Amino acid sequence: MNNKTAIAAWDELLGSENVITQDSILETNETATFLTKAKICAILRPSTSVEIQKCLKIANQYGVPVYPVSSGKNWGYGSKVPTGDGCALMELGKMNRILDFSEELAYVTMEPGVTQRQLYEFLQEQKSRLWLDCNASCVESTLVGNTMERGFGHTPYGDHFAQVCGLEVVLPTGEIIHTGFGKFPNAAAAPVYRWGLGPYLDGLFTQSNLGIVTKMTFWLMPAPEYFQAFFFSVSEDHQLADLIDALRPLRLDGTIKSAVHIGNDYKVLCALRQYPWQEAKGVTPLPTEVMAKFAQDWDFGAWNGSGGIYGTKKQVAEAHRLIAKALKGKVRRLQFLDDRTLKIADCLAKPFQKLTGSHLPELLKLMHPVYGLMKGLPTDSQLASTYWRKKSPIPEKPDPDRDGCGLIWCAPVAPLLGKHAAAINKIVRETLLKYNFEPQQSMTLLTERVLDCIITIGYDRQVEGEDEQALNCYQELMETLTKSGYYPYRLGIHSMKTMGKGEDNYNQLLRNLKNMFDPNNILSPGRYIPENSQVVSKLDEI
Amino acid sequence: MNNKTAIAAWDELLGSENVITQDSILETNETATFLTKAKICAILRPSTSVEIQKCLKIANQYGVPVYPVSSGKNWGYGSKVPTGDGCALMELGKMNRILDFSEELAYVTMEPGVTQRQLYEFLQEQKSRLWLDCNASCVESTLVGNTMERGFGHTPYGDHFAQVCGLEVVLPTGEIIHTGFGKFPNAAAAPVYRWGLGPYLDGLFTQSNLGIVTKMTFWLMPAPEYFQAFFFSVSEDHQLADLIDALRPLRLDGTIKSAVHIGNDYKVLCALRQYPWQEAKGVTPLPTEVMAKFAQDWDFGAWNGSGGIYGTKKQVAEAHRLIAKALKGKVRRLQFLDDRTLKIADCLAKPFQKLTGSHLPELLKLMHPVYGLMKGLPTDSQLASTYWRKKSPIPEKPDPDRDGCGLIWCAPVAPLLGKHAAAINKIVRETLLKYNFEPQQSMTLLTERVLDCIITIGYDRQVEGEDEQALNCYQELMETLTKSGYYPYRLGIHSMKTMGKGEDNYNQLLRNLKNMFDPNNILSPGRYIPENSQVVSKLDEI
Repeated sequence: MNNKTAIAAWDELLGSENVITQDSILETNETATFLTKAKICAILRPSTSVEIQKCLKIANQYGVPVYPVSSGKNWGYGSKVPTGDGCALMELGKMNRILDFSEELAYVTMEPGVTQRQLYEFLQEQKSRLWLDCNASCVESTLVGNTMERGFGHTPYGDHFAQVCGLEVVLPTGEIIHTGFGKFPNAAAAPVYRWGLGPYLDGLFTQSNLGIVTKMTFWLMPAPEYFQAFFFSVSEDHQLADLIDALRPLRLDGTIKSAVHIGNDYKVLCALRQYPWQEAKGVTPLPTEVMAKFAQDWDFGAWNGSGGIYGTKKQVAEAHRLIAKALKGKVRRLQFLDDRTLKIADCLAKPFQKLTGSHLPELLKLMHPVYGLMKGLPTDSQLASTYWRKKSPIPEKPDPDRDGCGLIWCAPVAPLLGKHAAAINKIVRETLLKYNFEPQQSMTLLTERVLDCIITIGYDRQVEGEDEQALNCYQELMETLTKSGYYPYRLGIHSMKTMGKGEDNYNQLLRNLKNMFDPNNILSPGRYIPENSQVVSKLDEI
Repeated sequence: MNNKTAIAAWDELLGSENVITQDSILETNETATFLTKAKICAILRPSTSVEIQKCLKIANQYGVPVYPVSSGKNWGYGSKVPTGDGCALMELGKMNRILDFSEELAYVTMEPGVTQRQLYEFLQEQKSRLWLDCNASCVESTLVGNTMERGFGHTPYGDHFAQVCGLEVVLPTGEIIHTGFGKFPNAAAAPVYRWGLGPYLDGLFTQSNLGIVTKMTFWLMPAPEYFQAFFFSVSEDHQLADLIDALRPLRLDGTIKSAVHIGNDYKVLCALRQYPWQEAKGVTPLPTEVMAKFAQDWDFGAWNGSGGIYGTKKQVAEAHRLIAKALKGKVRRLQFLDDRTLKIADCLAKPFQKLTGSHLPELLKLMHPVYGLMKGLPTDSQLASTYWRKKSPIPEKPDPDRDGCGLIWCAPVAPLLGKHAAAINKIVRETLLKYNFEPQQSMTLLTERVLDCIITIGYDRQVEGEDEQALNCYQELMETLTKSGYYPYRLGIHSMKTMGKGEDNYNQLLRNLKNMFDPNNILSPGRYIPENSQVVSKLDEI
């Protein structure tokens, strides 16, 4: 490694305004929502694929690794902090061009720096009838970054990696390739046909460190004639399994096309307000009776779900009927809302509150962003919940990294069966409560057959000992979940060792791939692919 | 290469009944539906993944390449004939176990030898409410083989590779790996969640020679409450573009979920009968006026399409309404059929024919298998059309390889826009007619954004000169199509060089992958990955 020489070379290449080495800025970028140790030697801000190529050449030459992020809003999984020490952080935010767009074929091609807000505004400007699928992170998170981590959203296009096509990738050794039909410079179907010709390579570049994606086509959803959201809840925790089993047939037969999200009482309360220190008399985790009081006052259940229905008026009406039929007797409440009824509710909320003392205005404030997400409207609303355990109020411009918000996410995947939901829920409750954290959980019916759970370990980094406590809790949670067969869909920078579990041959294949793509190990070392200097010759093993 | 020693070793491993070297059998397996030259040195019939491992060890040891097929019904693309000379053909037909099945989660896990017929019968035996998605090849074609080639079918699960998960792969160097969550031996979601954790590798093993897939999970479609098929046609060739543009919004918004197929008049006639030598007075290609007479007599149009609607009665009724509305004034005929009306038509066809002289019974005979395919019922009916130009009658048990049926398929992909359909149609008509072949064509609305065209070059291999004529025609067709931006989704063994076109860096990456996975090049040499002994060190190039 030769940091100084490498930095000087990058400086010459990108200009000093795009190579940051100021200690205070580096420190900010070394801060995540949990305890991390990796230091960065510089921040690089390239503007083009060619600049990235040259940056990587320098990295190879001087043996200084590079760690790319798009906007780096990877909260709960490590923010911008690299998996290994001594990397140059490469921010791709300056590469934020929208390169191609087709209203007819419903797609958009873009660079990695394009944010959800930017794409949303672009579609508005174009007066487009197309909707994007947002993740709930924040408006400034990027579409490419989220998709590379195989993140998900809320509409029928919720499984993001299943809705993209045609990558431009800068390989660690500096070559640029175009995947799918993109390898043929004139292929008409390049932005619409995923598989291309010959082996399909796109998957190699997700959750890996085998290349830097600099261009990607996203398929967009045509806005339906009519949209309706449905909200439902069950009173008791043990009703979760039945609820999941009631929804599965509707997901499997396509009546529900969207990624239905179901959050538990803790998740709802965290979205509604910060920790009730006063009511809880300063005690953590939240006493059961305090939660019960809130649930009664605010009228939410042990599990609370939402989903979208998309189609013509008649298509929506039929889905509405089938959902109501399937959930009859299984939920305490089932509400359908559309643009019109939501507007009416908004108007009536305040007078209704005066009359009855209900919390309708606050609940509506919570529902609006959820409703919007199902229509492709990005939101910052979820950021507030990262301040759950903070004793200071939520600032106007939240920044969980800066403000010492403690947040670790764990995201196990299970088959879409009630018994698996119940098993995960049991593990989560027991483990988090044991470590003094509220078991905040949501479960997403991501595809026809899959349940994706997001477990939040939320705490205050400024309380001494909590950083360690949270990591220990995560560790035990992950071990219990994986022993029970529930593996995560995605990893945080602190938990990459989970990748090393399982089949030796498979792990060795990953290492061989890494070695082939990146012989000097200069791209995001340790990210998803287990590191091991000893590459066994496979032929010797037969 | 040391054939004799390798064969002896395979013989010892598998038993002589599973290592065939009899000349006449080898010759049969060296025969496709077009001119090929590759010879095979033996046929291997392993029964287990472990036997495959050991076969590959021998292949590596003696430098004799192996070319695996499932059932090898790869008609039109090369049947069982290898891409390179001197391979041992490995038939996986003995590996035909169904290993796992879930009615609740709608999936089945199987070995590569399982045929469409076998799976269909299995589901019947289980009294399952699940449907498979068939390709139209024949009942004995396998699901794994077709999916590895990224073949497609007729239902909402038509894009086969998008509906599978969790591969077991024997690598060319002999290791066995399990992809997706399968790398973790106890992962509950292994059969239902595609991406697994870390890079997604499944795509590497499709259209490639990087491994032998020995196990795969297929997702199945729940049978809907109600099914309706729709059939439509346009009179004139120039109406195709408008038709495609009318259907696109319905495909994009999910009203039509199935892979709609549209065939031209030639395609219909070939399905109805053999070449009308008498009416055409022995002349080829088919004179326009003869085609016109048939089209009038049998009442088919220039383009004739079919699709399925799946759902509750109300969901189907609404889709029916939207399809009728979209096609109004754009088609000469639009018919909706369900099980009941099809039965009535069957009963009335004969009397109706007597009364009117119509060809309704023959047309119904043609419609039944198409209707069945949309409901997951495999069929052999399409085999007959490979005898189109033969002067002998269609035998009871058709075998196009054996009977010298000439068949080459070319399958370009285009964005789902009418203008592209028209452009491809023009190229196809001009090129095939020029070479004296009928421009048989079908176009499939494979996904929301993609049109997949299948062009048939159908001829009689026993007519001297036609083998060469057909290959020349294919060559010109492929060149004209690719120059115009239309690349194929799949290649025949004679056209692998198409893969070598396009980006050098990409092709080099493929070669590097091949070199890493298969250093001795003993698995299906030349299949999809361009061969090139000179592997350039990538670092030198930066």
